[in-house]
Amino acid sequence: MLHLTAIVTCLAMAFDFFTSTQVARARADCGNKAPSVTGHPDFGRVFRVQMNTLEWMPLFLPSLWLFAMYLGDLAAAALGAIWIVGRILYWNGYRQAANKRSMGFAVQALACFALWLGALGAIVWKVAHT
Amino acid sequence: MLHLTAIVTCLAMAFDFFTSTQVARARADCGNKAPSVTGHPDFGRVFRVQMNTLEWMPLFLPSLWLFAMYLGDLAAAALGAIWIVGRILYWNGYRQAANKRSMGFAVQALACFALWLGALGAIVWKVAHT
Amino acid sequence: MLHLTAIVTCLAMAFDFFTSTQVARARADCGNKAPSVTGHPDFGRVFRVQMNTLEWMPLFLPSLWLFAMYLGDLAAAALGAIWIVGRILYWNGYRQAANKRSMGFAVQALACFALWLGALGAIVWKVAHT
Repeated sequence: MLHLTAIVTCLAMAFDFFTSTQVARARADCGNKAPSVTGHPDFGRVFRVQMNTLEWMPLFLPSLWLFAMYLGDLAAAALGAIWIVGRILYWNGYRQAANKRSMGFAVQALACFALWLGALGAIVWKVAHT
Repeated sequence: MLHLTAIVTCLAMAFDFFTSTQVARARADCGNKAPSVTGHPDFGRVFRVQMNTLEWMPLFLPSLWLFAMYLGDLAAAALGAIWIVGRILYWNGYRQAANKRSMGFAVQALACFALWLGALGAIVWKVAHT
Repeated sequence: MLHLTAIVTCLAMAFDFFTSTQVARARADCGNKAPSVTGHPDFGRVFRVQMNTLEWMPLFLPSLWLFAMYLGDLAAAALGAIWIVGRILYWNGYRQAANKRSMGFAVQALACFALWLGALGAIVWKVAHT
């Protein structure tokens, strides 16, 4: 069983859920009632953090698990932890200003790309050698 | 193989797909042409049901499967079925009025949280005892 | 290990990521600054391609893997490849005009439905025969 990867998965889900609680809070702060998803830029940025995190979940989770299955639990969990740190930096930057979102975005994108590329490389290598 | 969890997964996907068919229907009813996603509140609420279901899929499915792998097929499938029932209540409430969405939301949130917490607890217990 | 299904999963993630790069490009072309997600229809259509791809990922990936586990790697990967082709057609049509999105949409929907139905049928058959 890939215990460490499973724990990182739970933490990534916790952060994803956290971004949605921030949207609920921004709705209250900006007086933006559901179902509206447009309005004040302060709401828009927090909403985009949630949406962007949601967009990356189906890139991150399968990459994480394929990497773990083909290349090992510990390395997958370490890269997955970096992804979560990048996501936290992204959230913390973007909620302040749109142009502060780049660094965290780059960190999480690189971590996810490393997981994806490592997994794909390992799979292709296995197919070629069996 | 975790057959019951697999069946609940198929049913959850079927409901998720159903929410997107309701958006297509609401587009026709409200005269809201694609690619627009704003407009009449009747459209907005149905669109939010789809979006919120989409937002919860990457929380629900990994929690469901980790719970099933660590704590068993039957309990996972039972909690997963409660999640689907909560989602149906949420859809049925929210499409009528924004303030009728709370009960179904709470049911599905509790079911998902139980899956997530049970999985995380079981994983940590395993790591600590091996 | 389900190597071919794993490769198709990596390719599907690559296409999903590609649709988000097109949104960034359309933001530049249409002068639509983040966090706004409304504006010019040329932006709206490209944004909807990304969103719709995102909406289908939690339908496609679990269906693909359940099909692969219950009915075999090769058939799953073949249907998964058709799904990706349908997604490319959908993107190429929709970015030109809203009414050119139907054919690609139908191809990917049928491929995904075949994966879902095949998986569900095989699971129910297994439960009934064990």
